[in-house]
Amino acid sequence: MNCEIKSAGSDSGTNLIPNGLTLGAFCGSKLEAIRFLRQLENRMPDAVSEVSKDVSQIVARVAAEGLPAVLELRRKFENIEADQPLEILDLAQLMTQKNSFGGGSSEISAEVENALKLSIERVRRYHDIQKDDTRYLKQHDGSWFGSRVRPLDSVALYVPGGAAFYPSSLIMSAVPAQVAGVSRIAVFTPARSLSNPVFLKTAALLGIKQVYAVGGAQAVALAAYGAEGIARFDKIVGPGNIYVATAKKLLSGRIGIDGFAGPSEVLVLGDGSSDPDWVAADLLAQAEHDPEASAVLCTTCAVEAKAVMQSLIKLLPLLGEREAIAKQSLARWGAIVVVSNRVELVEVANAIATEHLHIQTKCALSSEGQNYWTENIKSAGAIFFGKYCAEAFGDYLAGPSHVLPTAGTARFSSPLGVYDFVKRTSLLYMDNLGASDLSRATQVFAEAEGLPAHALAAKLRKIAESEVT
Amino acid sequence: MNCEIKSAGSDSGTNLIPNGLTLGAFCGSKLEAIRFLRQLENRMPDAVSEVSKDVSQIVARVAAEGLPAVLELRRKFENIEADQPLEILDLAQLMTQKNSFGGGSSEISAEVENALKLSIERVRRYHDIQKDDTRYLKQHDGSWFGSRVRPLDSVALYVPGGAAFYPSSLIMSAVPAQVAGVSRIAVFTPARSLSNPVFLKTAALLGIKQVYAVGGAQAVALAAYGAEGIARFDKIVGPGNIYVATAKKLLSGRIGIDGFAGPSEVLVLGDGSSDPDWVAADLLAQAEHDPEASAVLCTTCAVEAKAVMQSLIKLLPLLGEREAIAKQSLARWGAIVVVSNRVELVEVANAIATEHLHIQTKCALSSEGQNYWTENIKSAGAIFFGKYCAEAFGDYLAGPSHVLPTAGTARFSSPLGVYDFVKRTSLLYMDNLGASDLSRATQVFAEAEGLPAHALAAKLRKIAESEVT
Repeated sequence: MNCEIKSAGSDSGTNLIPNGLTLGAFCGSKLEAIRFLRQLENRMPDAVSEVSKDVSQIVARVAAEGLPAVLELRRKFENIEADQPLEILDLAQLMTQKNSFGGGSSEISAEVENALKLSIERVRRYHDIQKDDTRYLKQHDGSWFGSRVRPLDSVALYVPGGAAFYPSSLIMSAVPAQVAGVSRIAVFTPARSLSNPVFLKTAALLGIKQVYAVGGAQAVALAAYGAEGIARFDKIVGPGNIYVATAKKLLSGRIGIDGFAGPSEVLVLGDGSSDPDWVAADLLAQAEHDPEASAVLCTTCAVEAKAVMQSLIKLLPLLGEREAIAKQSLARWGAIVVVSNRVELVEVANAIATEHLHIQTKCALSSEGQNYWTENIKSAGAIFFGKYCAEAFGDYLAGPSHVLPTAGTARFSSPLGVYDFVKRTSLLYMDNLGASDLSRATQVFAEAEGLPAHALAAKLRKIAESEVT
Repeated sequence: MNCEIKSAGSDSGTNLIPNGLTLGAFCGSKLEAIRFLRQLENRMPDAVSEVSKDVSQIVARVAAEGLPAVLELRRKFENIEADQPLEILDLAQLMTQKNSFGGGSSEISAEVENALKLSIERVRRYHDIQKDDTRYLKQHDGSWFGSRVRPLDSVALYVPGGAAFYPSSLIMSAVPAQVAGVSRIAVFTPARSLSNPVFLKTAALLGIKQVYAVGGAQAVALAAYGAEGIARFDKIVGPGNIYVATAKKLLSGRIGIDGFAGPSEVLVLGDGSSDPDWVAADLLAQAEHDPEASAVLCTTCAVEAKAVMQSLIKLLPLLGEREAIAKQSLARWGAIVVVSNRVELVEVANAIATEHLHIQTKCALSSEGQNYWTENIKSAGAIFFGKYCAEAFGDYLAGPSHVLPTAGTARFSSPLGVYDFVKRTSLLYMDNLGASDLSRATQVFAEAEGLPAHALAAKLRKIAESEVT
């Protein structure tokens, strides 16, 4: 592609946007872009949601009344009779025949089954690199200290029912928990998932056996408190609606939780060397998720900017039912940005710490180029190098997780990983000599903080001069 | 000590508690103990506190109005004139003379200074073992994936003012941030800290230069949003009052935060082989913190149980002003538990996942014994092995952090560590062959999820048969 860089600002405004396509912004400068893109952070849901009161009541009922409350809430909010099973301890049974929830697993094509298997295998191989061992510091005086790593005992994987169920998301949360070594892994999902053949097949291929047929805030409360015959869980992870997210927030501290995911987002960086159709498809793959999703191209090549807009118009009709969603997303949070050089591409990327950063410049294909980007890009959920590495591969089966920090939170948080399913414990050992050596300084420090019993405990470990041999 | 094991339950009741000492519980069986100790979890503060509304207003004002709001809120809530400096960019200046906040650093004794130095040095050496590097998975087809580790850019360390200021806590949060490689580390603290010579000395020894003289919810909001000339921070850590804790909770997602610490707690495990005075001092070192703190002895030796109670009575008067606090704590959350054997000690410990677990049995002094405990104890903030390894050493200068999960959250969370000051980014690279290989399976998977643009993006990366050479 023949690229000429326009001077910053010269192409801004809506005049370049062809008929039939509305973008949230077309920016002709880095600063203009950053001003627009910074608003992406505001899509992060508020910490205290409008359903907090309802959710508090649900949580309190489950805590106080246990199983009967869970069944009653399920009947009320999920339209499931109380005599439908809540706890399924052997998923295989559900799959062998038309089950009481109305489903089976026969309807999965061999090709889909193979794609699920390939995903599980590759995601597992990638997550193996995240495993950690206990680390030690041994001292000359016989003391030693350690940072022990141990898997959580139990994890609840929340899986939304209906249209919001994505088998890939179940894979992305189950596999790192398994690689970490969590021994008790159960899925919590609305009962209707149990008639979904893709859900049943995915869970079976993952080796998940325990399922709790309950959704919403009552599912989170059940995981956190347990009930008669159901031991509570250490952590609950996975996406859910506003009730699920609010219950997780209210119960965090009682149960471990994962981060809160805002709408999905991609920032493609370009220099005119990629195929405009490829870039457009990558942008649409983000926009089709959700009207609040965000797809942005930032390029040093004004010609590419225009070509990608033409490609967007050409490809949008291929999206069928998803076309309307993608158009809304582009109109609200879509943007095309033209900047002057590679340094400005970095500045825009660093200003927004995007969930998916796809670098489709020529240099991203070489290891020198990759080094440039890894050194200069401070924060992103995931970085995809080069035009071949479509973000869609990462969504399904490249290996790394697709559960990534959104809305700028990549500045301080990480992809879901094996590290989210372990806990650390400090280990400390001293013999009498090691302790005696630290006794006086500890006593002095404790006295300076006004804590006499701390000082006393340290003082008592001092070996008397007469005892030193 | 001559120990005879009483049968479970035989010693329960209050009859064994000598005059002048009230304990929350004296339990003669494992089950009785677990029933009492499980209530410790209820000390965890609620997710939505009663000050949420006030804090929301403070946060909203700082977000909307910036610096003038911060100065006005500081004047109102902290009684500091608006013309007192907010931002101190060179702490050394403050220390050279009587500063405008009224303090200097000359009043520190050489012994205290040396204890601070020893602590910083040992805590740094321990945290070095927690450093992580980027890890890679290279594939035969030329693709590679990685989990990049990078320090956060900026961290705010919240330090309470007045009586709640503990220099050891500042060391425990600053050092792991420094070891992680965070380049911009600033302390946020109420202005009165700047007249505290221990604060100034500790900050100086740590090499901290930037201080913001502001506390409360307005400090957290300033860290999260920044203001004119003050860039926002990526994360804020450190203990604070209910306003600080609530502001952190409300702003999490805008800014990274650490966990919420409940009152401190220790569980000492015994078999009669330790010195009763040592055990009693260790229990008092916990109880003196806070009326809500919890100190528990669980032992297989009924004689030790009684002896430790006598020691508590003997040592309590040595605590001076802290005696009343320790007595309240013991009366509310203190407990002595007699169980039958080592297996039951493990069961009690695992039931409560205590912050500090101090194993003062004989076997904890040998490596075989240590292995028994590390294999069987599932969760704890920190495990102290053997009677010499007083928890007070860990509070100040053994090396591991004293910022530990409380109230049972050690089931799913970890000590504050270097891992809290880094973020991970997934890295993905594929060339045209690698991408082409995954194209079909990704397309199938995306179609099964009803996401046509994902399928299209993958399909476009397929090398046409005619192109394959």
